Amino acid sequence: MSLTPEQKAEIEAARAQRAETRRVTVPGIEEMLYEPLPVLDHGFVRVIDYMGDDSAVVQAARVSYGRGTKKVSEDKGLINYLMRHRHTTPFEMCEIKYHVKLPIFIARQWIRHRTANVNEYSARYSILDKEFYIPAAENMAAQSVNNRQGRGQVLSGPEAQQVMDLLREDAEKTYRSYEWMLNEGENGEPADPNRQGLARELARMNLTLNTYTQWYWKVDLHNLLGFLSLRADSHAQFEIRAYADAMLKTVEAWVPYCYAAFKDYRQGAMTLSAGMMGVVKKLVDGQPVDQASSGLSKREWIELMAALGRDA
Amino acid sequence: MSLTPEQKAEIEAARAQRAETRRVTVPGIEEMLYEPLPVLDHGFVRVIDYMGDDSAVVQAARVSYGRGTKKVSEDKGLINYLMRHRHTTPFEMCEIKYHVKLPIFIARQWIRHRTANVNEYSARYSILDKEFYIPAAENMAAQSVNNRQGRGQVLSGPEAQQVMDLLREDAEKTYRSYEWMLNEGENGEPADPNRQGLARELARMNLTLNTYTQWYWKVDLHNLLGFLSLRADSHAQFEIRAYADAMLKTVEAWVPYCYAAFKDYRQGAMTLSAGMMGVVKKLVDGQPVDQASSGLSKREWIELMAALGRDA
Amino acid sequence: MSLTPEQKAEIEAARAQRAETRRVTVPGIEEMLYEPLPVLDHGFVRVIDYMGDDSAVVQAARVSYGRGTKKVSEDKGLINYLMRHRHTTPFEMCEIKYHVKLPIFIARQWIRHRTANVNEYSARYSILDKEFYIPAAENMAAQSVNNRQGRGQVLSGPEAQQVMDLLREDAEKTYRSYEWMLNEGENGEPADPNRQGLARELARMNLTLNTYTQWYWKVDLHNLLGFLSLRADSHAQFEIRAYADAMLKTVEAWVPYCYAAFKDYRQGAMTLSAGMMGVVKKLVDGQPVDQASSGLSKREWIELMAALGRDA
Amino acid sequence: MSLTPEQKAEIEAARAQRAETRRVTVPGIEEMLYEPLPVLDHGFVRVIDYMGDDSAVVQAARVSYGRGTKKVSEDKGLINYLMRHRHTTPFEMCEIKYHVKLPIFIARQWIRHRTANVNEYSARYSILDKEFYIPAAENMAAQSVNNRQGRGQVLSGPEAQQVMDLLREDAEKTYRSYEWMLNEGENGEPADPNRQGLARELARMNLTLNTYTQWYWKVDLHNLLGFLSLRADSHAQFEIRAYADAMLKTVEAWVPYCYAAFKDYRQGAMTLSAGMMGVVKKLVDGQPVDQASSGLSKREWIELMAALGRDA
Repeated sequence: MSLTPEQKAEIEAARAQRAETRRVTVPGIEEMLYEPLPVLDHGFVRVIDYMGDDSAVVQAARVSYGRGTKKVSEDKGLINYLMRHRHTTPFEMCEIKYHVKLPIFIARQWIRHRTANVNEYSARYSILDKEFYIPAAENMAAQSVNNRQGRGQVLSGPEAQQVMDLLREDAEKTYRSYEWMLNEGENGEPADPNRQGLARELARMNLTLNTYTQWYWKVDLHNLLGFLSLRADSHAQFEIRAYADAMLKTVEAWVPYCYAAFKDYRQGAMTLSAGMMGVVKKLVDGQPVDQASSGLSKREWIELMAALGRDA
Repeated sequence: MSLTPEQKAEIEAARAQRAETRRVTVPGIEEMLYEPLPVLDHGFVRVIDYMGDDSAVVQAARVSYGRGTKKVSEDKGLINYLMRHRHTTPFEMCEIKYHVKLPIFIARQWIRHRTANVNEYSARYSILDKEFYIPAAENMAAQSVNNRQGRGQVLSGPEAQQVMDLLREDAEKTYRSYEWMLNEGENGEPADPNRQGLARELARMNLTLNTYTQWYWKVDLHNLLGFLSLRADSHAQFEIRAYADAMLKTVEAWVPYCYAAFKDYRQGAMTLSAGMMGVVKKLVDGQPVDQASSGLSKREWIELMAALGRDA
Repeated sequence: MSLTPEQKAEIEAARAQRAETRRVTVPGIEEMLYEPLPVLDHGFVRVIDYMGDDSAVVQAARVSYGRGTKKVSEDKGLINYLMRHRHTTPFEMCEIKYHVKLPIFIARQWIRHRTANVNEYSARYSILDKEFYIPAAENMAAQSVNNRQGRGQVLSGPEAQQVMDLLREDAEKTYRSYEWMLNEGENGEPADPNRQGLARELARMNLTLNTYTQWYWKVDLHNLLGFLSLRADSHAQFEIRAYADAMLKTVEAWVPYCYAAFKDYRQGAMTLSAGMMGVVKKLVDGQPVDQASSGLSKREWIELMAALGRDA
Repeated sequence: MSLTPEQKAEIEAARAQRAETRRVTVPGIEEMLYEPLPVLDHGFVRVIDYMGDDSAVVQAARVSYGRGTKKVSEDKGLINYLMRHRHTTPFEMCEIKYHVKLPIFIARQWIRHRTANVNEYSARYSILDKEFYIPAAENMAAQSVNNRQGRGQVLSGPEAQQVMDLLREDAEKTYRSYEWMLNEGENGEPADPNRQGLARELARMNLTLNTYTQWYWKVDLHNLLGFLSLRADSHAQFEIRAYADAMLKTVEAWVPYCYAAFKDYRQGAMTLSAGMMGVVKKLVDGQPVDQASSGLSKREWIELMAALGRDA
């Protein structure tokens, strides 16, 4: 992560401000406010603002006149109940806003989550910085052999280095062309006075997909947890998981009861199909069952056995 | 508006709390926090929480590292520009949460605005209070003669009183039946030990549509302004307009620049069709034009002349 | 369900029309088109239009130039895979439109599903019919003793009849007042020439919540299945479940592979929390475990044992 | 636009199919079904399916039992009325599905319209084709001097050719690296047996933003018109406007009355602020008014005078 001195100063100034409020506040997330959490080689996630806390969930569920909280154990129990039974609307009553810097190919995955508010840095209007994502050697992986949509072993030998060099070389080459096409010099003057320069909205098309972009992203807690349950998952691409993991830390600091309920009832949970439940019942009753007799497909059988910690 | 002493105490306790925060705060809306603004005979709107201020709009539009604000005149100019050109996403970066008490038939109009978060008091789970909306005499209006979807003159003579009596009588009668069917007495005991009592989820169906319900409603500023442009409009039903008018006051206190831009570019604005623009051009050029030669329908002609302050 | 002769004729005329199309068609749902499926005492669900079929799901998942289908077994396998792994977007590529007649208190539950398109019959503009939902004796249930949000035993003795009478009496009384307040006679003349009559948008507030309304409701298959997984569930209120059950039949006729996948991986599935999975593993391994040692709450333990068909 | 013989054959096969249906059909759009409309150098838009027609809008607005249509003039009048008064829900009752091939940088603008269903070709799962967008010489424009977010004059002299060469060269270079990194040969064998090859989800990051992607995109008519009013506008980037223009032709063929209403009341319409309306009234009344006395900003004054066809 590389911030200019001006950016650092702006962040420090924002962190230094204090005001009195009647709203609910959460010391844990206040402490994190505005501070960038580094992600990948140049990216970050930072919390810009938040609304509500654990008590705001129970307050809305109870449609209260005041804080709506009762004993801590009751509040925690209610949050667990709501999470377990997928009563989703009370979790929509908390809101959080992030500033995120991320490679464009990850931004394209991320934006598929539609129930959020987004303001992206505009490359029609401004010039993108010269920053590209280059995976570290330990994340330079080969195509998975049994999952067409994933990665497998880490590249061995000189290949990782060759790939790294190629990625950097191509990104730098296309960025140089981008700058040449823009032809923008100091003070709004053209760099080369004999050329007009290409419009920004066109020149940007020459950048590679690992170029960093940034956006403000605002979302309610329910939809954030939906995002995290998919993107902090082992099937998610490593690069977006890195962001999701950083955001999970902010959720833990912000709404610890909701976070605990999420870990137990969503992230650590497993949905068993009707067929799988039938197999589990037999196993619990000590009846013999194998894939052939189970009615499950081979893939489902493997998944189930893995979840039960048994050989497939 | 009638609050129980317990509700008043809860609100006072919430208003009394103070905490320090690094977030942006707005003194004008802090002052209003938790306080119910009375609407209709028993309803209210009260602000429960808010996120962001005018500067949050420009901060997101500029994807800033710090506050993102420049000179006041530039910020105001940018907000005007964004509103005029329907750049909607920066306005989504502010969020507000209300607690609203309102008659069910108004709740049914309100809920048609889908891009908001809602938690309604559950009549499956709890018992609704004995509170009904009875229009004041000056709001007791006859069907409009030229608008099938509106109201016209106020009822004259004894009819208003007859209607008022009938509304109250029917609401009280059906509420008595509701209570009888529920058969719930003190301490969870049945009122009449010889009957079982009907389930709440069924008994509620006997209530009239002017019974009050309540909900928590959370929305971003862009969608709130969309709601207000429709519901604070002269074509909206008086009863929902009363809520929208109260909410406009909260918007003015919260985000004064956005509010001013909304008044100029949305609420006070008029959209002229291609055909209407043609007529306006002729009029400005001093050319004669009447409805017959205008290409506009009679209704459009009337609307346009009204907007220009001319006889149709 | 009671249709006027005019309504029956309109439906018959719609069913009689035939046209040639290049679009995918599904004979099973064509057969059902426009035909009302009766629900409750006066309600119905009828399919008005549909877009896509099972093959449209695989076509979108494969982003195909043609139909996108391969062997039936591969298509079925892909649909199962997509459903199991919650790849939701391909299911959004099918769309269905219903015309539904339903009691207002059920419409209020239904509308909470926001990702659908709705056009409701307007009681600001038109007069509602004199039709109320009165539960049949076997659905007249007492409040549940262990679930604050549900119903328990059926009312016994004369109480059911008393409730039924009361519901009918109150609905008729309030409807008579509604008609009196409207004061609308034949041919647009007032019924009583000495009174003005109350505006429709006001008079409607006197109706009870079991009055029938109707709407057009259009939704994509993914969101429809989300609706059905909640509303065709045993925890849903009986009255909305009756609609969901009727709609499930239309889904089965329309997209049989998706329907089968939904039954196995959604409706018949169970989500086990991290804690529950730990208990299941122990049970499968033959280790002793009881509620006290399980880490589960009492309620969770009961739910898990029920799912496994064991005594709690 | 370049289709493989297999793709052409698949499209022909889809176009050749015919079935009988009870649904409403529109000959004009049936004729277009599946056929790609070329856009830019390699892109296209093609209609895959549709639901409803002009009559479906009036049917929903009237919540009809049958077709819901009356006299043609009444239907057309109702559609105009609904469009003019922004009654949006009836237009949501029509749905259309497109298959679109488009450059990634345009896809990134497009996806900001959230109320649509999307299935994009996955570069995690598959390999992207070697196709890039290279603007034609007449679309190779310089940055606008008075609009930071737009383009101005066409590049003159050799600069256009130089830019074109650079774009092609860089795209080809990065694509060659992409292929090298993938290391995929025939029959799933590695191209170079001594290397592992990089995972697809990683290799794609080296592609430039003018690489073509494709997706299925499904949307209701209301949201489609919202998309088109922004993207077929003169302020939209030329490249997305090219798609919007092609789609407008499909809307005209599909729902001609809605299309006409859209042209008059949306696309050709102008929204005048409260301040602008004040100026127009003065002009119509023959009163003198200039920018200084108007209360409008310079920019607003220029916009208004342009709309009225007068010198600023």
